[in-house]
Amino acid sequence: MKRTLGTCYYPEHWPEEIWADDARRMADLGLTWVRIGEFAWSRLEPAPGRFDWGWLDRAIDVLTGAGLSVVLGTPSATPPRWMLDRHPDMLAVDATGRPRKFGSRRHYCFSHAAYRADAARMAGLMAERYGDRVAAWQTDNEYGCHDTVISYSAAARDAFRLWLVERYGTVDRLNQAWGNVFWSMDYDSFDQIDLPNLTVTEPNPAHLMAFRRFSSDQVVAWNAAQVAAIRAHSKAPISHNYMGRVTEFDHYATGRQMEIATWDSYPLGFLLDRVPGGDKAAYLRQGDPDFQAFHHDLYRACGQDGRWWIMEQQPGPVNWAPWNPAPLPGMVRLWSWEAFAHGAEAVCWFRWRQFPQAQEQQHAGLLRSDSTEAPGFAEAAEVAAELRDAPDVAPMQAPVALVFDYASQWAWEVQPQGQGFDHFALCFDLYRALRSLGLSIDILPPETATLDGYAMVLVPGLLTIPAALRTAMERAEGIVVTGPRTDLKTDELAMPMPLGPNLPGLAATSVMEETFPPDAPRGLQNGGGIDLWLEHLKTDAEVTERTTDGTAVLLRQGRRAHLAGWPNKPSAQRILGDLAREAGLAVTPLPEGLRLRDTATERFVFNYASHPLDYAGQIIPPAGLLRLSRPS
Amino acid sequence: MKRTLGTCYYPEHWPEEIWADDARRMADLGLTWVRIGEFAWSRLEPAPGRFDWGWLDRAIDVLTGAGLSVVLGTPSATPPRWMLDRHPDMLAVDATGRPRKFGSRRHYCFSHAAYRADAARMAGLMAERYGDRVAAWQTDNEYGCHDTVISYSAAARDAFRLWLVERYGTVDRLNQAWGNVFWSMDYDSFDQIDLPNLTVTEPNPAHLMAFRRFSSDQVVAWNAAQVAAIRAHSKAPISHNYMGRVTEFDHYATGRQMEIATWDSYPLGFLLDRVPGGDKAAYLRQGDPDFQAFHHDLYRACGQDGRWWIMEQQPGPVNWAPWNPAPLPGMVRLWSWEAFAHGAEAVCWFRWRQFPQAQEQQHAGLLRSDSTEAPGFAEAAEVAAELRDAPDVAPMQAPVALVFDYASQWAWEVQPQGQGFDHFALCFDLYRALRSLGLSIDILPPETATLDGYAMVLVPGLLTIPAALRTAMERAEGIVVTGPRTDLKTDELAMPMPLGPNLPGLAATSVMEETFPPDAPRGLQNGGGIDLWLEHLKTDAEVTERTTDGTAVLLRQGRRAHLAGWPNKPSAQRILGDLAREAGLAVTPLPEGLRLRDTATERFVFNYASHPLDYAGQIIPPAGLLRLSRPS
Amino acid sequence: MKRTLGTCYYPEHWPEEIWADDARRMADLGLTWVRIGEFAWSRLEPAPGRFDWGWLDRAIDVLTGAGLSVVLGTPSATPPRWMLDRHPDMLAVDATGRPRKFGSRRHYCFSHAAYRADAARMAGLMAERYGDRVAAWQTDNEYGCHDTVISYSAAARDAFRLWLVERYGTVDRLNQAWGNVFWSMDYDSFDQIDLPNLTVTEPNPAHLMAFRRFSSDQVVAWNAAQVAAIRAHSKAPISHNYMGRVTEFDHYATGRQMEIATWDSYPLGFLLDRVPGGDKAAYLRQGDPDFQAFHHDLYRACGQDGRWWIMEQQPGPVNWAPWNPAPLPGMVRLWSWEAFAHGAEAVCWFRWRQFPQAQEQQHAGLLRSDSTEAPGFAEAAEVAAELRDAPDVAPMQAPVALVFDYASQWAWEVQPQGQGFDHFALCFDLYRALRSLGLSIDILPPETATLDGYAMVLVPGLLTIPAALRTAMERAEGIVVTGPRTDLKTDELAMPMPLGPNLPGLAATSVMEETFPPDAPRGLQNGGGIDLWLEHLKTDAEVTERTTDGTAVLLRQGRRAHLAGWPNKPSAQRILGDLAREAGLAVTPLPEGLRLRDTATERFVFNYASHPLDYAGQIIPPAGLLRLSRPS
Ligand SMILES: [Zn+2]
Ligand SMILES: [Zn+2]
Ligand SMILES: [Zn+2]
Repeated sequence: MKRTLGTCYYPEHWPEEIWADDARRMADLGLTWVRIGEFAWSRLEPAPGRFDWGWLDRAIDVLTGAGLSVVLGTPSATPPRWMLDRHPDMLAVDATGRPRKFGSRRHYCFSHAAYRADAARMAGLMAERYGDRVAAWQTDNEYGCHDTVISYSAAARDAFRLWLVERYGTVDRLNQAWGNVFWSMDYDSFDQIDLPNLTVTEPNPAHLMAFRRFSSDQVVAWNAAQVAAIRAHSKAPISHNYMGRVTEFDHYATGRQMEIATWDSYPLGFLLDRVPGGDKAAYLRQGDPDFQAFHHDLYRACGQDGRWWIMEQQPGPVNWAPWNPAPLPGMVRLWSWEAFAHGAEAVCWFRWRQFPQAQEQQHAGLLRSDSTEAPGFAEAAEVAAELRDAPDVAPMQAPVALVFDYASQWAWEVQPQGQGFDHFALCFDLYRALRSLGLSIDILPPETATLDGYAMVLVPGLLTIPAALRTAMERAEGIVVTGPRTDLKTDELAMPMPLGPNLPGLAATSVMEETFPPDAPRGLQNGGGIDLWLEHLKTDAEVTERTTDGTAVLLRQGRRAHLAGWPNKPSAQRILGDLAREAGLAVTPLPEGLRLRDTATERFVFNYASHPLDYAGQIIPPAGLLRLSRPS
Repeated sequence: MKRTLGTCYYPEHWPEEIWADDARRMADLGLTWVRIGEFAWSRLEPAPGRFDWGWLDRAIDVLTGAGLSVVLGTPSATPPRWMLDRHPDMLAVDATGRPRKFGSRRHYCFSHAAYRADAARMAGLMAERYGDRVAAWQTDNEYGCHDTVISYSAAARDAFRLWLVERYGTVDRLNQAWGNVFWSMDYDSFDQIDLPNLTVTEPNPAHLMAFRRFSSDQVVAWNAAQVAAIRAHSKAPISHNYMGRVTEFDHYATGRQMEIATWDSYPLGFLLDRVPGGDKAAYLRQGDPDFQAFHHDLYRACGQDGRWWIMEQQPGPVNWAPWNPAPLPGMVRLWSWEAFAHGAEAVCWFRWRQFPQAQEQQHAGLLRSDSTEAPGFAEAAEVAAELRDAPDVAPMQAPVALVFDYASQWAWEVQPQGQGFDHFALCFDLYRALRSLGLSIDILPPETATLDGYAMVLVPGLLTIPAALRTAMERAEGIVVTGPRTDLKTDELAMPMPLGPNLPGLAATSVMEETFPPDAPRGLQNGGGIDLWLEHLKTDAEVTERTTDGTAVLLRQGRRAHLAGWPNKPSAQRILGDLAREAGLAVTPLPEGLRLRDTATERFVFNYASHPLDYAGQIIPPAGLLRLSRPS
Repeated sequence: MKRTLGTCYYPEHWPEEIWADDARRMADLGLTWVRIGEFAWSRLEPAPGRFDWGWLDRAIDVLTGAGLSVVLGTPSATPPRWMLDRHPDMLAVDATGRPRKFGSRRHYCFSHAAYRADAARMAGLMAERYGDRVAAWQTDNEYGCHDTVISYSAAARDAFRLWLVERYGTVDRLNQAWGNVFWSMDYDSFDQIDLPNLTVTEPNPAHLMAFRRFSSDQVVAWNAAQVAAIRAHSKAPISHNYMGRVTEFDHYATGRQMEIATWDSYPLGFLLDRVPGGDKAAYLRQGDPDFQAFHHDLYRACGQDGRWWIMEQQPGPVNWAPWNPAPLPGMVRLWSWEAFAHGAEAVCWFRWRQFPQAQEQQHAGLLRSDSTEAPGFAEAAEVAAELRDAPDVAPMQAPVALVFDYASQWAWEVQPQGQGFDHFALCFDLYRALRSLGLSIDILPPETATLDGYAMVLVPGLLTIPAALRTAMERAEGIVVTGPRTDLKTDELAMPMPLGPNLPGLAATSVMEETFPPDAPRGLQNGGGIDLWLEHLKTDAEVTERTTDGTAVLLRQGRRAHLAGWPNKPSAQRILGDLAREAGLAVTPLPEGLRLRDTATERFVFNYASHPLDYAGQIIPPAGLLRLSRPS
C-alpha cells in the first residue's frame, strides 16, 4: 500500500464558492484524503428530524470530483443544542456531581441509552446516503478527550448497576468479590450501590475498579452501535481517531471493531502535560522524541492487521496547550516521516485552513484563514514530493515487544500505593530506554497469544497475566522480562492466594511492597537506582542486581527475568541493554535526541535535537532525518 | 485646590459619648474629610421600612460641628440579613454553581433588578435627607472586591439573554458573530443560551467575551442607578472607591458617571498576590515601587477632569493579605506624598480606630482600639504639618502616555494562548520600565481621541483599536509604540479580515503567533529577551531588533514602532529608553528602589528601598523622599 | 502495672476454622490484648433489628479461651448501608455543600441525633451482652479521621442554632458578642444564622470560632452517649483510639469521660503530611523523632491518672500515605519502647493479619494474608521477650511542662493573621527544641490548676489564659514562659480591653502584631531569628533578646519570660536551653536523630538516624536504643 497524505476540512465553515479551489489546492499539494463532517450535526439536522443533506452532497461532489477520497465522520461528538431538549439528562456529570454543560463539545454521557441510539441512527442515515461515495468512515471524534469517559450521571449509575448484575449475578457474590465485610460495606441489593465518588475517604478499590471497567465498556458499546449502523449500509473501512495518552477505555477493544486505527498527533500540544518525564525544555519546538513513536506502535496494535493512520497531524502552533510554540522548521516533515517509519498508511494534517472564530481560532492550519499558505504548507509539500518515490508501507515485526494494558492503568490509578505509580509512565520509561538503545518495538495487548519471533518481551506492571498470555510467555523463546508490580493482584484488584507474582518460569513471591518519594531513590550496587517502587521477593532464582542495602532487584532464571523495582533512566538503559545483547540484538546506544526506526526495508534516523547530531559519520541537521536502506 | 487629608470612621461601632472627642482629635490632626456610613444599613433600616436616622443625624452634627467635611457612603455593599428574605435569589453564584452566602459583605448579584432598585431607593432616601449636609458621596464600596463582578446566578443568566438580544437582535446574527457553526454550537433561540460555565471544555471565546462585557455593563448600570438617585436630591460630588488590580468592569465607564474617582491603596496588602512580578522580598514593608503609582495614574484617568483621591490608605498592618507585616517607618508618609505627586486631591486613612471585633480586628487604624495612638498616627501628623506650606494640587500632562483597556484584559483572560498573557501585567511591565527611566506617565482609556502633547504613546496588547484612537494615532506627533498583540482581533474576539494588525502608519501582518513558557525566553541579538509571546510579522518596515534566530521583534516606520513580543526587563528598559531619547525626553535611569514623579511645579524623589540611596548627590534615607522644584 | 502488648483482629474477616490457631499464635507471641468488633456492624445487625451475635460470642470464647483479654469496639464508625435508609440525612456534608457518601467509613454527621441514638443503642446492646466478658471497651474508631468532625449538614445547622441559643440566650447578645454591627451582619433571630461556609469573603471570626467550639462539643456529646450506654452494663474501662494531629475536637474533654486514652501511631504514615517541619528525607523509614513522643505526652494528659495505650502501632508499610516505605529494621521495636518510655501501659499492633481485599489490602500486619510471618513479626517477638524482665510502667512527672490547647488551635486556624500561624506547629516546634536538649516533657491542658513541681512551664500561643491556669501561673515556682501570641484575645476571638496580653507577673502590652513570610525571618542580635510572627510590646520589663532592628523579643521579669515572636530552630534551642539551665535543669544537647526519655526509674536513649550515633561513649546502631537506669 502506498504511503499517502491528507487533511481535515470543514466545508460548512466556508462559503461554497471556495470549495472547488480548496479541493484543487489539496490535490495539487499531493493529498489523497480529506476528512469531513465530524462536527457538522447542527448543519445536517438543524432541527429534530429536519435534515439538510444538500450541502454535504455538494461538498462530497466537489472533493471527489477533484480526485480526493473522502473520510466521513459521524457527528456524535457535537450533538446540537436541541438534542438537550430531547434528552435533558444526557450530559455527563463530573466527580463533584455537576453536569458538564453544553457550549463546547463532547457534551454527552456514554451511558445515556437514548442519545446513544440517536447517535447511531444518525450514523446509519449518513451511511445509507453516502455509503458508496466515501472511502472510509470515522466514528465520533477523540473518545475520551476532555476527560469524558468517566461520568457520574444518573444514567451511568443505572447502567453500572445493570453491569454489576451481569458481572456478579447476586449481591452476595459482589460483596465477597469486593471484600465488603471489611468496613461493613455490604450491600443488600444492587440498587443500593452508588457510583464511587464523594465517599468520605477512598472507596473500596474493587468498587472503583469495577466502575473503571464499566466505564470502558460503555465506550466500547457506544462505538459498537455506530459501527453496526454504518456496516448495515457501507463496505468502506471504519476508523476512530484516538488521542495521545487517553487511557480511560480499552482501545484494543474498540480497535477490534474497526478496520483502521487512527490517532491525532500533537507533538507540541502534548509535550508539557501528557509526556511522563523527559527534558521538556530541550524539546519545546520539537516534541518529545519518544511520545509519538510510542503511540504509533500502540495504535498499530489497535488496527486490524496493524493498519493505522495519523488522522490529525499538527502543522504549526495549536491553541490548547499551556503554551503554544511554533514547531522548529523541519519538524512538520520529520513528524510525518516518523509516522511512516512506524508503518502509517496515511498522515493527514489538521486542519486545511485556520478558522478565524471560536475555540480553535489560534490553531494553525496548512492555510491561514485568509487562504494564504501557513508555514507548515511548504513542509507538507516537501513530504508529498518525497513520497513520490518512497517505498510502500512495509510493516515489520519488531525484535522487541512490550505489553501495554489499559486495565492495569486503571488498577494502578485506583491503587497506586505511592503517588505516581502509573502503568503508562512505567511502560513509557522502559520504551524510552529501549528506543535510546536503537531498538524498534512492537506494543502488544494483554490478549496476545503468541510471542513468536520476539527476541525480548517486556511485561511490566501487569495487573494479572491472562491465561493466553501466560501460555505464550511459557513458550516464548526470547527473553521475557516481567515486573515491577506484575501479577500481584487478581482481576478484582485483590491479593491473590497464593500470593503473587505467579510468574511462568521464575519462582518468586512478594513478601512486602514499598513505595518512596521521587527524591528518595534506592541506589543499586551496579549503579543507577530504583524509583518509587520496590517489591521484596522471596525467591530461589539468581539475583543479578541488588540495592545498596542488599534487596534483590533483578532476578534471573534461564531466559526469564524479573524486575523488583522501577529502574531509573541509567539503570534501565544498562539493564535492558545487557538483556538485549544477551537476546542477540544489535544495540546502538544513541545520543540524546537521536532516534532510529526500522521497517522491513528501510532504516530511518531522526534528529529531534535543536543542534546537529552525527549518525555513523553523517551529520543530521536539527529537525533533520536520514532515510537509509535497512541494514541486513 | 489644596491638598487635603481625611479618614474613614464608623460612628455606629462606638458609643455616642466618644464621637465628639474623636471629631476633635481628627480636626486637631489636620484632617479635612471623614467618610462614614457605607456599611451601616442594618442600623439605618433595622427592619424593612423601619428607619433609624437619628444616630446618623447626630453623628453628622458632631463631625461637621468639629469642622470636618463628611463623605457619605451608600450602604449597598452590606444589605441586612432581612433583605435576603425579600430577595432569596439576590445572591451571586460562583462558577461552580454555588450561591455565595450571607455572613460577610458584597453578598449580592449585580444583575438582580429588585435588589438593585432597593439599593438605589436607599441611596435616594439618604440623599434626600443629607443632600445638603454632606460634602461628597460615595456609592457602595469597592465594586468587584472578593471577585464579585462575575456571577452565574439565574438573575445573571436572564439578564445576559436580554443583553444578547440587545446586542445581536437575532440569534442567527449571534451564531454568525460567534462562529457557532464550529462545533455545532448553533442556537435556535436566545433562551437556549446559558452562562459560559461548567462546559465540558472551554466555551466559545466569543461567548465568554460577551459574558465579560455584559458583567461589566451590569456594574455600570448598577452604579448609574445610585448616581441618579443621589443626583435627584444633592449637588455634592459623587465618587466610588475602586480597588487595586480589579479589572472585571470598565472603570472608565463608571468614572464618566461621577465627579471624583477614588481608590483604596494598600501597598503591603496588595504586594504579594496582586503585583505582577517584581522583587517582593525587597519590598515586604514598603510595597511595590510602581504599583501604587500605576493606579494613581489609572484612576486619574477615571475621574472627571482628572479629579481623584485616595479614599483608604493603609496606616499600619492589615489583616487580609497572606502575611501582614508592619510598614517600614516612614512609609505611611511616603505613600501619601506619592499620591499627592500624582495629583491626588485628598488622602484618607482607613480607619480612624481599629475595631476590636469581627473580620478586620487585626487591621490597624490611626488609633488602636483603646483610643491610644497607633504607630501610623505620628506619620499622618507629619504629613499634615508638611501640607500646610505645600503647593496646591498642580496636575500636569505627562510626557508619556500608555493606553490601558479593560476589554483587552477580558479578551486575554478569555484567550491567553499561553498561560500568563495578561493585559494588566503587560501594561504594568512597560509602565515599570518607563518609570525606572525617571519618566512620568499618563494612563489613557481606549476612548482617547487625541494624543496631542505626548512625546511618546504606548498601545500594548489592545484587542482592537477603536476608530477615534486610530485617528488620534494617525495624527500623533509623538512616537507611537504598538504591540505586542495589538489589534490582532475583532470586537468579537475573532481574527479580522484582512488579518491583523492593521496599524496606522506601520504596515505589518501577523503570519503566526506563538507562546512559550516563562523559563524559555527567546534571546535578542542586542541583548535581553522576549518572554511568553512572539508574533511573526510580514512587513516591509525597518526591523531594528531581532531574536537570535532572526525573527523581527521591533519594527520601525517613521515615528511609529511595533513590538512583536513581550520584552523582558532589561530589553524593555533598553528599547523604551532609546525610543524616549529619540522622542526628545530626558531619561534618568534610576537605581532599583528610587522613583521620580513630576507635577506642574514640583519634582518628587521617593526611596522605596530599605537602605539609603543617592539622588543627584543627595542621600535619601530608607522610606524617605525629596520634594524639589520641578526642573525646567 | 505490667507493660503489655496486643493486636487488632477481625474475626469476621476470616473463616471460623482459623480463629483458634490465630488466638494460639497471639498468645505464643506474648500478646495480652486483642481488640475486635469496631467495624463489624453489618455482620452483627445484618438488617435493622435482626441481630447475629453468635459469631461474636464464639470469637470471644476462642480468644479468651487462649488467655487473651478482649477490647471490644463499638461499630458506630461504619453504619451499615441500611442505616441510610432509616436516616437519609445522616451523612456529613462538606464545606462546598456536598454530602459525603456511603462507601468507605465514618459516613455520619456527629450532629444527627437519631443516628447518635442508634449508635448508643448498639453500644448498650453490646455492653449488655458482653459487659462481663471483655476487659476493656473502645468507643467508635478514630474520631475526626478523614476530616469528619466538621460538617455542614442540615442536622449540624439546626444543632448549631440550638447551641447558640444555649450560649447567648438572645440574638442581641450574640450580635454584640460577635460585633455584627461591623458589616451590617446583625441577625434578628437565631433562625437566620447559617453555618459559616460559602460566604462571599471570610465570615466573622467569632461566627467561625463558635462553629468550631460547637463542632467539638458535638463529638464530646456523641462520645458521652456511648459511654453512658456502656456504663449501664459494664464495669470494664472505656477508651477511644485517637489519631495523630487531629485537633478538631477537645480530646481532654472526651478524655475526662473515659478511663484510658489510646492512640493510633503510624510513624511513617504520618511523616510526610502531618509532621510540621523537620528533615523528612532523613526519616522516611523511621518516622519523625519527636512526633510520636509529642502524642504520647499529649494523650497521657487525656487519660485518667495518665493511663494511656497505643491501640494501633504500625508493623510495616501502610497503604494510605503519599508514599509507603518499609520501616528500617529495628524501628518496630524502637517505636514500642518509645511508647513504654512515655508511660504506655500497652502497645497493640494493627493488624494481626493483612486483609487481601478492600481499602487496606496493602497495609502490612504481623502476618501476611497467607498467614506467614510478615517482617514486623520478629520485632514484635523481640519486644515481647524484652518485656518479660522489664520494669513495670513507672510514670514520672516531667521537669518541664507545655500547655497545649485545642481551642487555641481553632482560634488561629480561624484567624492566623499570616499563613501558617498554627498552635500545634508552634507547640511542636518548642517541644522539639526541648527534646533536642534531652529534656522530658509533660503536656498539660488549659484547665490545669497547679504547676507545682515543674521547673519550667511553656504557655505558647494560648488564646486566653483561663482563671485557674492564671492562678497556677501566678503561684508557679518554676520559670513560666509565655508567648508568642498568648492571651491576645477574648474567648470570643476579639481583642480584650485592656489590650492584651495581660500576663501574670510580666507587664507588657501589644502595640501591634505583624506577620511575615517564611522566607523573610527577622534576625536576632544574639543569633538565630524570628519566623512568621512578631508582636511589638510596650513594657517596662527587661529585654534580653532583640531583633537586629531593635524590637524586643524576649522579656524577663523575675521567673517570668515572654517571647514576642516565633523563634526558629537555633534560637529556640538557645533561648530555651538558657532558660532551662537557669531553672536548674540538666540540659543535654543531643545530636540530630538521638533522643532521651526518662521514667521514674529508667533512661531510654533512641537512635532515629539511619547511621550509628554515640551516647556517652556507647555506640547505638541505626534504629537502636539503650535502656539505662535513670541517672539520679
Ligand atoms: Zn482533534
Ligand atoms: Zn476597604
Ligand atoms: Zn486505624
